[in-house]
Amino acid sequence: MLTQRYKCIVQYDGTHYVGYQVQPNGNSIQTEIEKALRKMMKGQTIKIDASGRTDSGVHALGQVIHFNLPIQIKPESLQLALNSMLPADISIRQVEKVSDAFHSRYSAKGKKYVYRVDLNRFADPFKRYHTLHHPYRMNLDALKASLDKLVGEHDFTSFCSTKTEKENLVRTVYVAKYEIDEAANELIFTFIGNGFLYNQIRIFVGTCLQIADGLKQPEEIDRLLEVKDRNEAGPTASGKGLYLVEVYYDNTFKEKFTHF
Amino acid sequence: MLTQRYKCIVQYDGTHYVGYQVQPNGNSIQTEIEKALRKMMKGQTIKIDASGRTDSGVHALGQVIHFNLPIQIKPESLQLALNSMLPADISIRQVEKVSDAFHSRYSAKGKKYVYRVDLNRFADPFKRYHTLHHPYRMNLDALKASLDKLVGEHDFTSFCSTKTEKENLVRTVYVAKYEIDEAANELIFTFIGNGFLYNQIRIFVGTCLQIADGLKQPEEIDRLLEVKDRNEAGPTASGKGLYLVEVYYDNTFKEKFTHF
Repeated sequence: MLTQRYKCIVQYDGTHYVGYQVQPNGNSIQTEIEKALRKMMKGQTIKIDASGRTDSGVHALGQVIHFNLPIQIKPESLQLALNSMLPADISIRQVEKVSDAFHSRYSAKGKKYVYRVDLNRFADPFKRYHTLHHPYRMNLDALKASLDKLVGEHDFTSFCSTKTEKENLVRTVYVAKYEIDEAANELIFTFIGNGFLYNQIRIFVGTCLQIADGLKQPEEIDRLLEVKDRNEAGPTASGKGLYLVEVYYDNTFKEKFTHF
Repeated sequence: MLTQRYKCIVQYDGTHYVGYQVQPNGNSIQTEIEKALRKMMKGQTIKIDASGRTDSGVHALGQVIHFNLPIQIKPESLQLALNSMLPADISIRQVEKVSDAFHSRYSAKGKKYVYRVDLNRFADPFKRYHTLHHPYRMNLDALKASLDKLVGEHDFTSFCSTKTEKENLVRTVYVAKYEIDEAANELIFTFIGNGFLYNQIRIFVGTCLQIADGLKQPEEIDRLLEVKDRNEAGPTASGKGLYLVEVYYDNTFKEKFTHF
């Protein structure tokens, strides 16, 4: 049967989910979207694929999924139908028809994540599920130096969960930086790369905050890239500060960000 | 016994509460703060007073409470102790010692509220408990005209819940305005007055949005101020978009805002 492939950009508040992917132990983003599609398709199961998983509590502003439908429907109508059936913490931001050559995971050329840190002395009640609270005085020069060392093509074994099923742990990081949002009193990390390993950003953040706190020196990053041992790196920072912001399907994003 | 009075500025996400005040049917902000104080005081009950109630789902950036303690404790230590015992959706932002002449409700000279409206076509998942979703094209000139008509000293009977226990429903509104936050895609109302009646801001917003939507004309406000009948006004807008931002205890705030 002829089918039409659709690409959707999805936004979600991950607080109440076990993560993007279907899990035995709770509700997932994938489950909710498949449920909405099944309802729309009068009981027919539609399998969806995403650019990658996000962990429990992790959020998305620009997760990308795709699926095939046995019907033709206008992207705008599909968006309206899905949003009317999805729970309020998941929203379809954009829908487009794509060719069968497009695959949300295999066609991805890169990703952008941000990680938000609440710097208020007492945690902001409105950000309790959306930032990591870290109210300590930090050495921002050391933080910048450690982030700079993460940029480039490296074997990131030290920064990857041992639960990974991947063999090749070499990835390229194009951007690893922080900004201070004075008005919000937040420190915001941005990471852009050609792909990220299981827990990679969260271990980056956990390790860089240790360095910013003065517990270790920026040169620790050189050592970690060398030793290739997850147990040597810092803790995995909480998922609640992490946002998948954008998935790139066109290599031009690299030209914009490559400066090494 | 000699006691010391303390004034606290409190911030809370009202989503999971029945409101500020103790209710038979669920958990309140007041209950949580009194529970924390009782824990701190080894079981002794400390009664607290606030500048006023906030409804179910309504938030606060600057609610003010006061209470007397039979002990002397540094404001900073009291803040730390309370915040360590309060749930993550309530936070004490500031503590100071005050004289027994200070009363959070009776000494209040005015209040500032904001009301946030999410203008995105599809509701932003991250704002679902913190804004009213109203994605319709609005007549902003009509909105401004209707807000202007609310400013001044009026009998606000039409804009007050019939459940009120107050007899005098004359209040003065110093500021009634809106701004558009383009980056956030929000319309933000600000109201400053010498005091607000039960549901007053929410009925203001419900009525003004009807006018902005073209269902009624700005002159409707004149009529409502005249007829003094709650049933004639617009609906009570959801509490989730409403924030108590500041309570004024000094009349100088009026000079800043009075322009009528």
